[in-house]
Amino acid sequence: MTADSTRRDVLIAAATTLSALSMTTAAAAQLSTRPPVPPSGPKKTLGMILFDGFELLDVFGPLEMFGMLKDRVEIVMIAPKAGPVKSGAGPAAIADFEFADAPRLDIVMIPGGIGTRREVNNADFLAAITAIAQATPQVATICTGSGLLAKTGLIDGIKATSNKMAWKWATAQGAKVLWVPHARWVEDGKYISSSGISAGTDMALGLIAKLYGKDMAQWVAHRAEYRWNDNAGDDPFAAMNGLTG
Amino acid sequence: MTADSTRRDVLIAAATTLSALSMTTAAAAQLSTRPPVPPSGPKKTLGMILFDGFELLDVFGPLEMFGMLKDRVEIVMIAPKAGPVKSGAGPAAIADFEFADAPRLDIVMIPGGIGTRREVNNADFLAAITAIAQATPQVATICTGSGLLAKTGLIDGIKATSNKMAWKWATAQGAKVLWVPHARWVEDGKYISSSGISAGTDMALGLIAKLYGKDMAQWVAHRAEYRWNDNAGDDPFAAMNGLTG
Repeated sequence: MTADSTRRDVLIAAATTLSALSMTTAAAAQLSTRPPVPPSGPKKTLGMILFDGFELLDVFGPLEMFGMLKDRVEIVMIAPKAGPVKSGAGPAAIADFEFADAPRLDIVMIPGGIGTRREVNNADFLAAITAIAQATPQVATICTGSGLLAKTGLIDGIKATSNKMAWKWATAQGAKVLWVPHARWVEDGKYISSSGISAGTDMALGLIAKLYGKDMAQWVAHRAEYRWNDNAGDDPFAAMNGLTG
Repeated sequence: MTADSTRRDVLIAAATTLSALSMTTAAAAQLSTRPPVPPSGPKKTLGMILFDGFELLDVFGPLEMFGMLKDRVEIVMIAPKAGPVKSGAGPAAIADFEFADAPRLDIVMIPGGIGTRREVNNADFLAAITAIAQATPQVATICTGSGLLAKTGLIDGIKATSNKMAWKWATAQGAKVLWVPHARWVEDGKYISSSGISAGTDMALGLIAKLYGKDMAQWVAHRAEYRWNDNAGDDPFAAMNGLTG
């Protein structure tokens, strides 16, 4: 065993112990208030955009978290055509609406996935997400979904992040976007964007905290037995992929 | 600020710093070997069971991780009837096969969700999952999916875990199961079971580590920008819900 690997093991053990201690203490506070009462107001409609080759967790991580707020949020799935839409991994989800028939949304989410490489050259697709994003007060992207949104020009001059392994491709879609390499997620005005795949789940909880309070986000994470990475600036994957800034 | 909350903040800060340090060190080792070459052998078929009211992340967390191994694993979706199956949160997935037409599987996964409360009283459903589990060399459950499997009697005398908020309901489905309250996931022979919702993703990476090596699991987690909770015994949610053992 090298000195480095010993140091690493010690650090991991220490972090695990401290993390368990802090979570237990945090949990006690959190459980006393569950479920928190969300602020009153009309039910929100969250639209998730689908396209062939979407990334499964980009879509269903955020929807798991928002799906816990069924009395406050209705989820609709929107794609170029209603009906089955195949993910990059194979399994298909159902689009409830085609773009033209989509209801008015309060939140729209644009996922990433291998299909972004095709859609970024699809003028009809880009026009449809432009119209939806312009009409929607809260626009979120997950992973390389920010590449799609960048290509529309809507986030020129806006801060955004993206998948760290696909950083070069994503950032090439919008030279005027203010790309932030080191971030789990980034918010700028009505736009919020996450880093790769799993980061969308953390961003979704961040958005729940913004809309319904941090107690609600913690309660949702607890129900999902999810260890929320709740610090938007804590992103080890940037350095792991040689990105700085 | 109370002494308790100060102590908690200090612990959280320490854990975050140590965690970041250890991840960066671990990452450096991990990136040098990516992507690892999986052991040769025939492609495996992974079948995910669907039913009305399945939990989204129970299904799509594990499938995100196994979906990264497309050249090694084919994913099929199986339900009482082929076609759309609605999740508890609303969005629907497509079942490729009905039970009777399902192909031979190498791995079967049974998710949880609100629909388990109905299916646990559905003799046809229980007979179908019994037949599939008996014929499949690796059987995994996520969340309250272990309640369904417990009800079949197949895991009598076998160690298993389940969702920590639904613990009472799940464990009541099988009095002879050796329930383990404090675990992120539990393996016993050909059976592997996870705690609630998000824990299925960690278990899936544990299964990938078992089948293809820990390097592969770490590479998959890295691609998904996922902080894998890779210690099956580290479960803060048990204590948070007043469970011990």
